Amino acid sequence: METIRTIMEHRSIRKYKSDPIPEGIMQEILEAGTRASNTGNMQVYSIIVTQSPEVKEQLAPCHFNQPMVKEAPAVLTFCADLNRFSQWCQQRQAKPGYDNLLWFCNGTIDAMLAAQNVCIAAEAHGLGICYLGTTLYTASRVVEVLRLPKGVMPITTVTVGYPAEQPLLTDRLPLRGIVHSERYDNYSTTDIDQIYAAKEQLPLTQRLLAENDKQTLAQIFTDKRYPHADNLAFSRSLIEVLEQQGFMNHDE
Amino acid sequence: METIRTIMEHRSIRKYKSDPIPEGIMQEILEAGTRASNTGNMQVYSIIVTQSPEVKEQLAPCHFNQPMVKEAPAVLTFCADLNRFSQWCQQRQAKPGYDNLLWFCNGTIDAMLAAQNVCIAAEAHGLGICYLGTTLYTASRVVEVLRLPKGVMPITTVTVGYPAEQPLLTDRLPLRGIVHSERYDNYSTTDIDQIYAAKEQLPLTQRLLAENDKQTLAQIFTDKRYPHADNLAFSRSLIEVLEQQGFMNHDE
Repeated sequence: METIRTIMEHRSIRKYKSDPIPEGIMQEILEAGTRASNTGNMQVYSIIVTQSPEVKEQLAPCHFNQPMVKEAPAVLTFCADLNRFSQWCQQRQAKPGYDNLLWFCNGTIDAMLAAQNVCIAAEAHGLGICYLGTTLYTASRVVEVLRLPKGVMPITTVTVGYPAEQPLLTDRLPLRGIVHSERYDNYSTTDIDQIYAAKEQLPLTQRLLAENDKQTLAQIFTDKRYPHADNLAFSRSLIEVLEQQGFMNHDE
Repeated sequence: METIRTIMEHRSIRKYKSDPIPEGIMQEILEAGTRASNTGNMQVYSIIVTQSPEVKEQLAPCHFNQPMVKEAPAVLTFCADLNRFSQWCQQRQAKPGYDNLLWFCNGTIDAMLAAQNVCIAAEAHGLGICYLGTTLYTASRVVEVLRLPKGVMPITTVTVGYPAEQPLLTDRLPLRGIVHSERYDNYSTTDIDQIYAAKEQLPLTQRLLAENDKQTLAQIFTDKRYPHADNLAFSRSLIEVLEQQGFMNHDE
């Protein structure tokens, strides 16, 4: 089944050919994005399609200068957007009330469902994609570069283009590590050992341990990739941007 | 192209046949969920598959007693999950630091990408799905029913089963209302009028205006469906649950 195959064969593509994405295909994958489920059919999200070298150049530092931001023909920024809906309310004698964390979450959900539809549709067309998790870390800068007004928060960024690499499938935890039956079944020490065993035995893991001079793979995550001090700093600045963009008004 | 067709023909299904979902198909669609992109391949999400009448009965009030929660053969709750990863860290001499809003957002992103993969894979198999936005509103109750430990937050719920209805496609805003080129292009009054014109002229809209005795469709959203007082109350209780589940620790 083509759809299942497309989903199962997903790999993140970080190297792209310079070929542009034909306009008709771009329209079709964006249209696919808008067919996603969304909150009350309010569609509280926006998609910003950046293709010019100038704006991609400005976005690059928001994504820690990963080369694919400048190299991919298109960079898509998916945003929670309560601005459009609130403007419509104001023009229609209706008082909007979406400047709070619940609606940031609803906008995030809408943005992510649209994003995944766009990505799967792109992959069905032979395009490659990569999600960039950096968007939330540097949200205040993304807001500046893309000139996001109050009510709009960048959530994730996706690079899109024809693949110039064929990476192997990455590993995943076994299904029993992710899926719970009926209710949440908390993990015993043995469960955790079993769920992570295959990942810990990968040749890639062994190489990372040697390169980083660490005893365990978990330490590479906690000490190198996502250390607590960075998480705290990014988290605090995220809260500041949420305040600035108008998602933290919780008083009457 | 089957994948594009599956995406473009999505409609939310709220009435289901009683036929169970074959175990092999359930496994395949869940597996499809785990192939989604995710944060640093940490897979910080969990999927809870509820099929027993007893637990569905308990979940029903969390979703405002919409009948499909009890009628659908399977109810899937997608959660941001930092518990599994943190437990692994603790068993591997690594100090986790994911008890903050940034990682709630990362977990939300992971959960939503997995959810949309599951939904598209389900639809490719002829199943119908419906997202329930109620999960975040009643998160504290969902936490109790599903016994979610600290580090786990329910984000969205999806009912799954074979469709017993064939609803029409719902409307969407035109692509130019959602997509911005290069940077965010804020909306003029005329833009808003044009973007919402088709929606406002739908027969469905006319019926809603008459039924609700309102002048504008926007007022139905602000006064009936998502009034400010409800948004505030849900938003505050969401923040409380985030504190309780350990996602609001922003001090050193």
